Amino acid sequence: MCELGRPKETCISAPQELSNGGGIDTGRTISFSDAVIAIAITLLALDLKVPQLPESSVAAELPSALLELWPNLYSFVLSFWIIGSYWLAHHRISRLVGAYDRRMQLINLLFLMWIVLMPFSTALVGEYEHQQLPVVIYAVHNILTSLTLTWLWRHAIRDSRLVEANLDPSLVRYSNFRSLVVQGVFLLSIGISFISVDAARLSWVLIWPLTGLVL
Amino acid sequence: MCELGRPKETCISAPQELSNGGGIDTGRTISFSDAVIAIAITLLALDLKVPQLPESSVAAELPSALLELWPNLYSFVLSFWIIGSYWLAHHRISRLVGAYDRRMQLINLLFLMWIVLMPFSTALVGEYEHQQLPVVIYAVHNILTSLTLTWLWRHAIRDSRLVEANLDPSLVRYSNFRSLVVQGVFLLSIGISFISVDAARLSWVLIWPLTGLVL
Amino acid sequence: MCELGRPKETCISAPQELSNGGGIDTGRTISFSDAVIAIAITLLALDLKVPQLPESSVAAELPSALLELWPNLYSFVLSFWIIGSYWLAHHRISRLVGAYDRRMQLINLLFLMWIVLMPFSTALVGEYEHQQLPVVIYAVHNILTSLTLTWLWRHAIRDSRLVEANLDPSLVRYSNFRSLVVQGVFLLSIGISFISVDAARLSWVLIWPLTGLVL
Amino acid sequence: MCELGRPKETCISAPQELSNGGGIDTGRTISFSDAVIAIAITLLALDLKVPQLPESSVAAELPSALLELWPNLYSFVLSFWIIGSYWLAHHRISRLVGAYDRRMQLINLLFLMWIVLMPFSTALVGEYEHQQLPVVIYAVHNILTSLTLTWLWRHAIRDSRLVEANLDPSLVRYSNFRSLVVQGVFLLSIGISFISVDAARLSWVLIWPLTGLVL
Repeated sequence: MCELGRPKETCISAPQELSNGGGIDTGRTISFSDAVIAIAITLLALDLKVPQLPESSVAAELPSALLELWPNLYSFVLSFWIIGSYWLAHHRISRLVGAYDRRMQLINLLFLMWIVLMPFSTALVGEYEHQQLPVVIYAVHNILTSLTLTWLWRHAIRDSRLVEANLDPSLVRYSNFRSLVVQGVFLLSIGISFISVDAARLSWVLIWPLTGLVL
Repeated sequence: MCELGRPKETCISAPQELSNGGGIDTGRTISFSDAVIAIAITLLALDLKVPQLPESSVAAELPSALLELWPNLYSFVLSFWIIGSYWLAHHRISRLVGAYDRRMQLINLLFLMWIVLMPFSTALVGEYEHQQLPVVIYAVHNILTSLTLTWLWRHAIRDSRLVEANLDPSLVRYSNFRSLVVQGVFLLSIGISFISVDAARLSWVLIWPLTGLVL
Repeated sequence: MCELGRPKETCISAPQELSNGGGIDTGRTISFSDAVIAIAITLLALDLKVPQLPESSVAAELPSALLELWPNLYSFVLSFWIIGSYWLAHHRISRLVGAYDRRMQLINLLFLMWIVLMPFSTALVGEYEHQQLPVVIYAVHNILTSLTLTWLWRHAIRDSRLVEANLDPSLVRYSNFRSLVVQGVFLLSIGISFISVDAARLSWVLIWPLTGLVL
Repeated sequence: MCELGRPKETCISAPQELSNGGGIDTGRTISFSDAVIAIAITLLALDLKVPQLPESSVAAELPSALLELWPNLYSFVLSFWIIGSYWLAHHRISRLVGAYDRRMQLINLLFLMWIVLMPFSTALVGEYEHQQLPVVIYAVHNILTSLTLTWLWRHAIRDSRLVEANLDPSLVRYSNFRSLVVQGVFLLSIGISFISVDAARLSWVLIWPLTGLVL
C-alpha cells in the first residue's frame, strides 16, 4: 500500500500501534478476553439440558434420566476446569506483558476463537462419549488452543518492548512447562483413543496433577 | 517436580504467585467472577420459554399457558435472588481480600462452577416442581455453593498476607452467620422434603428475613 | 438479631456497609450491572430464529419466511433501544451516586431482575403481536422497571451520603421527567390496547421524541 | 420542551452531558460496548449444533454429519474475524476519543445493535449458503455496521472537545481507508452474488489482506 517514491506521510498502512507511542491499551484487551472466556465457560452449562419426561412417568424415570446426563456432566466439569486453566495461564501471561502490538491482538483473537468453540467440542464429546472421532476432535482442539497460547507468549517475550522489564525466569519456565504438559497429554490421548476411547477421555485429567494445579 | 539435590533455580513448579511479589492481580479475578455471575444470573431467564400455541386457539389458551409458567417464574425469581445474594457475599469477601494466591484462584473457580450450574438446577426444579429429587438436588447444590464460599473466606482470613490489615470483626461475624443460615435453611429443607416437597421449596425464602437482607 | 441488653460488639446484623467506612465499592456494582444489561440486550436477538425450510422450497419461501420475522424484528429493535435507554438512565444516575448502601444494592438487583426478564416479554410480544395480553404484560413490565429506577434514584438523592456533593439540578429534573414520560407512555398504551392492540404497540415509540433522545 | 420566555433554569431538556462538566464517563461506555461485542462474538458459536443421530448409526454417520457443518463453520470463522476486526476498529477509535456526548452514545448503541444482530445474519448464511438473499442480507448488514462506525468516528473528529488533542493523522487515514475497504468489498460482493453466490461469499475474505490485518 506504500509504493516506492511516494512520500511516507501519505501512505496508508495498518498502524504500527506500538511505534505510535506505547501500545494498544492493554487493559481493554484483557477485559475483552476475560469477558469472552467468562461467557464461553458459562455457556458450557447450556449443554446440560433438563430431561423432558411425560408427567405420568416422571417419578419413576427422573433418577435414571438424570444419571444419563453423567457423560455430559463429566465433559462439562472437565471443560470448565480446562477453560479455567487457560484463563489462569492467560492471566499469568498478561501480568508479564506490558503492551499489545497488532500481531498480539490477532494471536489473542485466535486464542479466543478456540475458547469460543470449546462448548461445541464439549457438547460433542458429551453426546457421543464412546466414539473416537469426538475425542480426537476435542484433543486436537485443545492442542491448537494451547499452541496459540504458546505463540502469544513466545511473540511477547521475543520483543523486549512488550514484556515487563524484570521477567521472572521461574515464571517463564513454568509457562513453557505447563504448555508442554497440556499438549503432551492431549497428543498422548489421541494415541490412546485407538486402543480405548474411554481411557483416552479419562487420561485428560492427568493435566492437573502434572501441572501441580490441585486444590 | 523438584528432585532433591537439583539446584533450586532450575526446578519447575507452579509459581507461588504471592511470594513472587504480591499476589495475582485481584481486580482481574474479581471482574472475571463478576462476568461469570452476571451471565449465569441472566441465563436463568432462558428457562422461561414463550409458550407455542396454534394460532386458532391463542386468544383462549394464552392466559392459562402463561399461568403454567408460574413454577418456572417462582424458581427464576428465587434463583435470581439467591445468586444475587451470593454475589453480594462474594463482593463483601473481596473487599477484605487484598490478594489472591493460587489456591484461592482454584477455590474461586470451584465457586464459579457451582454458580454456572445454577441455571440447570433452577430449570430442573421449575420443570418438576412437585418431585422430591429436584428439590434435594437444588438444596445440596446450594449447600455446596455456600460451603465453597465459606472455604474461600476461611482460606483468606487464615493467611494475613491475603486480607486487608484492619479486618472489621463485625463483618467477619456477619459473613460466618450468613453462611450458616444459608446452609441451615437448605439442610432443613431436605428434611422437610420427605414430608412435603412444596413446603420444602417454600422454606427457601426464609433465607432473606433470617439474614436481614430485605428491602 | 440484637437482643436488648446484649453488648453491641457481639450482636450479629447485616452490616451497614456505609457506616463501616465509606460504602460498598461503587465501581464493582456498576460493572456488574453493565454486564447484566449487556447480556440481556444481546440475548434479545436469540428470539430472531433462522426459519427452517425444506431444501426443495427454500428459494421460493425464504423471502416470505423472513418477512414473517417482521414482528419479532420490530420488538427486538424496540426492546434494544428501551434497554439502551435504561442503560443510559442507569449510567446518568450512577455518575451522581458516590456510594451504594445495602438497600441500594437490593433496589439495583431488583432493577436488574426486570432487565433480565426483558427478553422474555419481548419474545412474547414478538410471537403474539396481535394479542392484548402480551402487550399489557410488556407495558406493565416496563412501568415496573422504570419505577424501580425511580426508586433507586429517589433513595440515593434522599441521603446526602450517597450522592455527589454538587448535584446538578437540571440533571435531577431531566431524570424525573424522563421517568414520568416512560411510565406515562406505557400506562397510556394499556388504555389504548383496549381499542387497538397494534396502536398500543406503536405508541411505545413516542418515548424517544418525548424524552428528546433522537439521533 | 423549552418554550420561549420561560426562564432557562426551569426548562427540561435532555442534558447536554458535555457542557455540564466533561462528558459521560468514557470508560463505562467502552466496557459496556466490549461486553456486548464479547457476548455477540461468543453467541456466534451457538449456531454450531452437535448433530443428533440415532445411536445405531452414529459411528457410520458422524463424520459426514460433521462435514455438513462445514458451511456453518465457515460463516462462524468469517463472522468471528469480522466482529473481531470491528472490535479492533472500535478500540482504535476509542483510544482517540476523550469524551462521549449524547449523540455519540446513541450512534454507539446503533453500532452495538448491528453487532448484536450479527449472529442472526451469520446463522442465515450458514443455513442457506447457496441462496442469494442471505448473502445480500449479510453484505448489507456489514455495510450498515461499517457506516455506523464511520459515523461514530466522523462525529468525534468533527468536534475538538471529543478527541484527544494530538490526533495522529496516519491513524485517521488508516481508519478511513479501512472503512472504505470493508464497505467496498461488501458492496462488490452484492454485485458478484448475481453471477455466483459462492464467489460472493468467498470474496469477503479479501478484507483482511486489503486492510493489512494478517497474522
